[in-house]
Amino acid sequence: MNAEILAIGSELLTPLRSDSNALYLTAKLLEHGITVGARVTVADDRALLESAFRTALSRADVVVATGGLGPTEDDLTREAAAAALGRGLRRDPAILETLRERFARYGRVMAPVNEKQADVIEGGRVLPNSRGTAPGQAVDADGRLLVLLPGPPSEMQPMFESQVLPLIGARAGGAVLRTRVLRIASMSESDVEQALAPIYTAFTNPRTTILGAPGQVELHLTAQAASDAEAEQRIEALASRLREPLAGRIYSEDGRELPEVVAALLLERGLRLALAESCTGGLLAARLTEVPGASGFFERAYVTYGNQAKLDLLGVDPAALARAGAVSEETARAMAVGARTRSRTDIGVGITGIAGPDGGTADKPVGLVFIALDGAAGARTRRAHFPGGRDRVRFQATQAALEMIRRGLLGLSPL
Amino acid sequence: MNAEILAIGSELLTPLRSDSNALYLTAKLLEHGITVGARVTVADDRALLESAFRTALSRADVVVATGGLGPTEDDLTREAAAAALGRGLRRDPAILETLRERFARYGRVMAPVNEKQADVIEGGRVLPNSRGTAPGQAVDADGRLLVLLPGPPSEMQPMFESQVLPLIGARAGGAVLRTRVLRIASMSESDVEQALAPIYTAFTNPRTTILGAPGQVELHLTAQAASDAEAEQRIEALASRLREPLAGRIYSEDGRELPEVVAALLLERGLRLALAESCTGGLLAARLTEVPGASGFFERAYVTYGNQAKLDLLGVDPAALARAGAVSEETARAMAVGARTRSRTDIGVGITGIAGPDGGTADKPVGLVFIALDGAAGARTRRAHFPGGRDRVRFQATQAALEMIRRGLLGLSPL
Repeated sequence: MNAEILAIGSELLTPLRSDSNALYLTAKLLEHGITVGARVTVADDRALLESAFRTALSRADVVVATGGLGPTEDDLTREAAAAALGRGLRRDPAILETLRERFARYGRVMAPVNEKQADVIEGGRVLPNSRGTAPGQAVDADGRLLVLLPGPPSEMQPMFESQVLPLIGARAGGAVLRTRVLRIASMSESDVEQALAPIYTAFTNPRTTILGAPGQVELHLTAQAASDAEAEQRIEALASRLREPLAGRIYSEDGRELPEVVAALLLERGLRLALAESCTGGLLAARLTEVPGASGFFERAYVTYGNQAKLDLLGVDPAALARAGAVSEETARAMAVGARTRSRTDIGVGITGIAGPDGGTADKPVGLVFIALDGAAGARTRRAHFPGGRDRVRFQATQAALEMIRRGLLGLSPL
Repeated sequence: MNAEILAIGSELLTPLRSDSNALYLTAKLLEHGITVGARVTVADDRALLESAFRTALSRADVVVATGGLGPTEDDLTREAAAAALGRGLRRDPAILETLRERFARYGRVMAPVNEKQADVIEGGRVLPNSRGTAPGQAVDADGRLLVLLPGPPSEMQPMFESQVLPLIGARAGGAVLRTRVLRIASMSESDVEQALAPIYTAFTNPRTTILGAPGQVELHLTAQAASDAEAEQRIEALASRLREPLAGRIYSEDGRELPEVVAALLLERGLRLALAESCTGGLLAARLTEVPGASGFFERAYVTYGNQAKLDLLGVDPAALARAGAVSEETARAMAVGARTRSRTDIGVGITGIAGPDGGTADKPVGLVFIALDGAAGARTRRAHFPGGRDRVRFQATQAALEMIRRGLLGLSPL
């Protein structure tokens, strides 16, 4: 089964907005084993919309559209979808009644313009929206499934999960599709592939897809089965084989990102940490404190961008700094030790490097980063050379530091 | 003139990748006054691709496709576009020669599979690619312009700017379209609209679009004229009217984001700053150090998440902290003063607040943030209450702090 996603709204075709609905739906459909063949963002234009619906219905088994279900003149989704299907719209009295009640509850009289929110495509089924005025609808169109959902994510997401996924599941003929995502940090896509391809290519159910991004690789294992339990069993049979050669490098199988995993480990053990960041300039602190409840494990960070800050705040030895340079294993280690001892926390982390675009030399090129740990996660240092521009180097450095903390806490060998 | 963008590649339909090319092209086309009617992301599937090209060519004046021009079996853009146009492909001997030379330069013999990169759609024009093997092409298709560009942004972007924009300009019939973006921080979209709509609605050339995002509003002014100079003149005539009621609130008219603007002001004046961050947890430091050359103005940040860190590192008075609480104007001010004096820099910034989701009370709800400045940008404090979840609150707090620094440096009144 393949799907197509239509994100509707002229505001989505301007630089400030992103198609978060389309990305959410892509991820959710993939999790359920459904490939997305195309993702289309369309302006609020009647002819464009009708053409987009017609094209999508000509090539996809499932078409999910979001947005354009409101009461304004720009909200054309219902009309365009009906026209593309060659069907009419009927005004649903039950929806009309619900709309009127909703307005009355706020002491307002419903303006006639709102009535079109009660229009349903002939043969369509209403999908109730408990969080907003615009209901969704699902239409069986010559064996294809067309779903219209409202644009606000807080309305769309629960409707998709509770009402649309079961409809899609029913079309899979009772078969259940489940995907588990295995995440790995600080390892290249080709290294993961080389280590694991001999194993997963021997399995056709689940099938495996590898996805790589800077500092992260994901393995998507999708199984088809008669029941959830059987799908899980099939996935686990392969996952257990994949874990062996990777020896602890998979950091998450439950959807969590690396900062959340490290945060949970620290909270579990009642450990607190302090950071000393130079080239990452606070990015590691920002990523860790993005996790709700960060105050349970995060005590402080010293963003020691200038050398004077390294001396003042971390007690880095000026002679050593002059000798080895700010970007050196020795300085990274002194930063980690300084962060831990001066904050009286359990773990200290030091990061120093050259993020670029300038400042690189033959000896110390752009992308060179030293990371050091001190304390309850072990005393370790790592020298890494990250590819890419300033942003990528900085992100990969934070990813590598998080992975070092995780491995240290779990007693896994250094990389 | 309206455009449609096709981003080609199955990897773009997985959660780890984003359509950065499509977003770049949307922004660039808008800057040149061309509306994007639809943006389509398509998998590497021959039938889907052909259908996407056919649909796009049926409804847009300009179709720009990126990706799928490489040598592998999955690279189907040339074939699909030719089929959609009902034209053949010819193998271009000059491209073939260039490809062979490129391989020879690296001491390799070109495999036959690479030859298809020399295929050009009948009637198409080759767009040279100085940074990669796959050239682009431009085809006039019954009055519509179809452009194929390679996927890597480092190849695609310079080709688009130097080769495609002039082609599009030529089609505008000598008319020039120019857009200037006016950026405003820490002001709501509706407040901007209320202040400015009476002015810009009186202008039809340039026309104005307002776009809002958390912590930022953009005004896009698009003028059509016979020459660049005239378009600029028209834009300036409106922009100068819009600046008055906003009294210095527009922070950028040249594409720069707020951290870059603040960085440039600090560098210009030779001022250095130090931050003390609590609820933003290093995010302001990370945003400022993302600017290349940040070491010229950024000395250090104290990420004092825990209270002990505020006492140790910033000299916040324990009695005052106990009395007013960590989230208070008094603590924010003490943090800013501590950051400046202890780092011996020119400007200190203090931020403390409740980012959520927990920790809010009736008195101090989630989203409440105090920001203080001390030193060469003035001694100022601001109490703000930001809407939204943890991420939004944190981002808006950094945006408000940057705007305070900017206004302080320019001697503008506090907000």
